Amino acid sequence: MFVAMNVFQIVSGKEDEFERIWRERETHLHEVPGFVQFALLRAEDGEFISHTAWQDRAAFVAWTESEQFGRGHRQGGAMEGILAGHPQLRTYEAVIVDTPAGRTVGAL
Amino acid sequence: MFVAMNVFQIVSGKEDEFERIWRERETHLHEVPGFVQFALLRAEDGEFISHTAWQDRAAFVAWTESEQFGRGHRQGGAMEGILAGHPQLRTYEAVIVDTPAGRTVGAL
Repeated sequence: MFVAMNVFQIVSGKEDEFERIWRERETHLHEVPGFVQFALLRAEDGEFISHTAWQDRAAFVAWTESEQFGRGHRQGGAMEGILAGHPQLRTYEAVIVDTPAGRTVGAL
Repeated sequence: MFVAMNVFQIVSGKEDEFERIWRERETHLHEVPGFVQFALLRAEDGEFISHTAWQDRAAFVAWTESEQFGRGHRQGGAMEGILAGHPQLRTYEAVIVDTPAGRTVGAL
């Protein structure tokens, strides 16, 4: 499993508006091969993380080059005055994954 | 859904050893009420994140006060010389969750 996280710092007081834009945004991720899960995570101090899990890095890279990616990111103008700085993208390999049913990645 | 992330900076060259300790560590999370998923995430620059999802904040807090938490954290001595600084705990509410089957949290 491959994870891409985008970390957003939000202008104080604009947190609910940022969340609303994401809720109302059209998502095309469910159509994308290798997509596992998307979560928008909200901290108490105005930080948000968009956290997307993929089957592997290749699925993530293919998505960034896809038509769905272009469509999703053309909606970005709504963020003016809401972001305090550029989002920071970080990517990770999941080396262990445990669920209530047991270890699904990284078993010995 | 509630997410707790612990961010670890690892001494250069000790990444594989850090990963091995986690792989071999006894996990008791599957026994804990409200546990959804654990993932150990590895970046390319020596950063690791332990990412644990819970049904809600109450399940996370109950776990930190549980016997399983105490057992899991008594194995911590193995980390000497591996961590470059204290782990940083960050917690989040998942305000949106999308899966290939649709939106499971935060639907309008």
